Amino acid sequence: MAVLCKPAIAVPDYVITNEETLELARRLHGDHRELRLVLRLIENTGVLKRHLVQPIDTVLKHPGLDARSAIYEAESKARVPDVVRKALDQAELEPQEIDLIIYVSCTGFMMPSLTAWLINKMGFRSETRQMPIAQLGCAAGGAAVNRAHDYCTAYPDANVLIVACEFCSLCYQPTDLGVGSLLSNGLFGDGIAAAVVRGNGGTGVRLERNGSYLIPHTEDWISYAVRSTGFHFQLDKRVPGTMEPLTPALRAVAEQHQWNAGKLDFYIVHAGGPRILDDLCRFLEVPPDAFRFSRATLTEYGNIASAVVLDALGRMFDEASALDGHRGLLAGFGPGITAEIALGTWTSES
Amino acid sequence: MAVLCKPAIAVPDYVITNEETLELARRLHGDHRELRLVLRLIENTGVLKRHLVQPIDTVLKHPGLDARSAIYEAESKARVPDVVRKALDQAELEPQEIDLIIYVSCTGFMMPSLTAWLINKMGFRSETRQMPIAQLGCAAGGAAVNRAHDYCTAYPDANVLIVACEFCSLCYQPTDLGVGSLLSNGLFGDGIAAAVVRGNGGTGVRLERNGSYLIPHTEDWISYAVRSTGFHFQLDKRVPGTMEPLTPALRAVAEQHQWNAGKLDFYIVHAGGPRILDDLCRFLEVPPDAFRFSRATLTEYGNIASAVVLDALGRMFDEASALDGHRGLLAGFGPGITAEIALGTWTSES
Repeated sequence: MAVLCKPAIAVPDYVITNEETLELARRLHGDHRELRLVLRLIENTGVLKRHLVQPIDTVLKHPGLDARSAIYEAESKARVPDVVRKALDQAELEPQEIDLIIYVSCTGFMMPSLTAWLINKMGFRSETRQMPIAQLGCAAGGAAVNRAHDYCTAYPDANVLIVACEFCSLCYQPTDLGVGSLLSNGLFGDGIAAAVVRGNGGTGVRLERNGSYLIPHTEDWISYAVRSTGFHFQLDKRVPGTMEPLTPALRAVAEQHQWNAGKLDFYIVHAGGPRILDDLCRFLEVPPDAFRFSRATLTEYGNIASAVVLDALGRMFDEASALDGHRGLLAGFGPGITAEIALGTWTSES
Repeated sequence: MAVLCKPAIAVPDYVITNEETLELARRLHGDHRELRLVLRLIENTGVLKRHLVQPIDTVLKHPGLDARSAIYEAESKARVPDVVRKALDQAELEPQEIDLIIYVSCTGFMMPSLTAWLINKMGFRSETRQMPIAQLGCAAGGAAVNRAHDYCTAYPDANVLIVACEFCSLCYQPTDLGVGSLLSNGLFGDGIAAAVVRGNGGTGVRLERNGSYLIPHTEDWISYAVRSTGFHFQLDKRVPGTMEPLTPALRAVAEQHQWNAGKLDFYIVHAGGPRILDDLCRFLEVPPDAFRFSRATLTEYGNIASAVVLDALGRMFDEASALDGHRGLLAGFGPGITAEIALGTWTSES
């Protein structure tokens, strides 16, 4: 029985409020022909503030990909170990008890990924499996949970560490001036999350079933252009409407489990943007309050990519409202368009 | 019982011989102070020829990362589907019967990875899981086999498609003049491989156990610098000596299975270079002939990164020498320094 334990989260100290973001947009893009639309979209994100690894003035000056790669490496090495340690502590495990590290991050690229450094730095066993995933974007948080679940299904005594490290500000591209890019500049934030999936014991979400779904022929709706200036995030305006085709996929996975996706006790979903949450409420026919954890992540941190679902889950732990036997759904959404869906039941260690 | 079926392989049509490589090195680096060492290293690779997606004169002109990313995408889309179709045919499966696609490639970066496009293009189910891995380098071939094995252990009726797509020539960096870089320019080649791991039935290697091993504190021995010109491969001169610390790890995984790693019937190992193969023979105390499949890959195609182990395995299928019950070891080596190790037994469909 794989149990997803309490996530640990960290966000960096530099903060930009939504007002400051709007002011910046006005200042930098005063002559943009769709400025009013951009401002309205940013206002409507529901994001109050976001956290950044560098001061906003530094973020805005693209120092070149060489320098950005160095910043990504330095910041991840400086910030990830503490979050991992806390996640391990919360799961009551030592590094030596971890069998697989799933490291997801789409906002910087290293080879080897941080897994090798973490194993050396933190005393994980040399035999620890490494699963670095960089290409599932915001869906990777859900994918990490699901692949951890699969691993514990194959090896019931195994423990899996999940790390999501996202510095979206390091993908800021000053020359990208499309509406989707300007909206993204006002939506994404930086954050790190980690959590352990325990094969035995643990308090949290007992993972019971998972599923994946790709909306046909949407692979260019969310994508990166990989250029000399780094990753350029390309967001199609049809993306906010994707909950309509994804809801049947969520319902189908629940039905396979004899559950009704609209009648669950908790929901932890990727807060890609406000419409994602609004639409999913509507199509699943659940009250808006059901998505309060995801909405709080969006409000407090913006879209922190693959780390959103773990942060939202952490908020549910903090609220301490889940009772043994409560059934819930966790879902990440991202490029593909891909949904990674998990079903689980709250369980506290007996 | 997960069975790794016959791999399909494709290499592109442009060919460069080792003689042409040496001539090029002399022409381009006539004033290099370590030219004689470089030439000797390239001569000693044992590579007779390599295949490239573009003519060598085009490879040598770095067109910038934007253009290289476009070439990677175009070439992978042009070449991968045929290899996948052949691998499916050889496993006697239709796309609809695949539950997970593991796509490994460290020589180009796309988000989403090619998995989303493949699902749409080739008629895989929308529910197919996607596991793109870009950061395990040459070890990713072994990792893909092992994660496929894990998945079939969790879901015994599942089928997994593995794809390894490597265009190493698209990482050629004309300004990198270290001995390791010049050697790499004469060692790596382009190639695509695919294979299916069937949960039920199939002829091939029945996967029985897998393991991973990271040599402590070697994470900077094989790495990429991620720069505005793309991935810069950085090879430490200590890498060819890594079989000495890795052999005990191979032996340990075999011992867990009550096997003797030095007394197996077949060996499919990553042919990173000639010394890797020579040393591993020596430390495992097996005759050189035991590594004939890997050596043939190196000779015919050079180091084709994560695709090596699948190509070498394909050669074993072609030789048709394996008999039911023959026991073997498959291993990929790459950045970390990571070894991904699999043990399996030849089985033909009853």
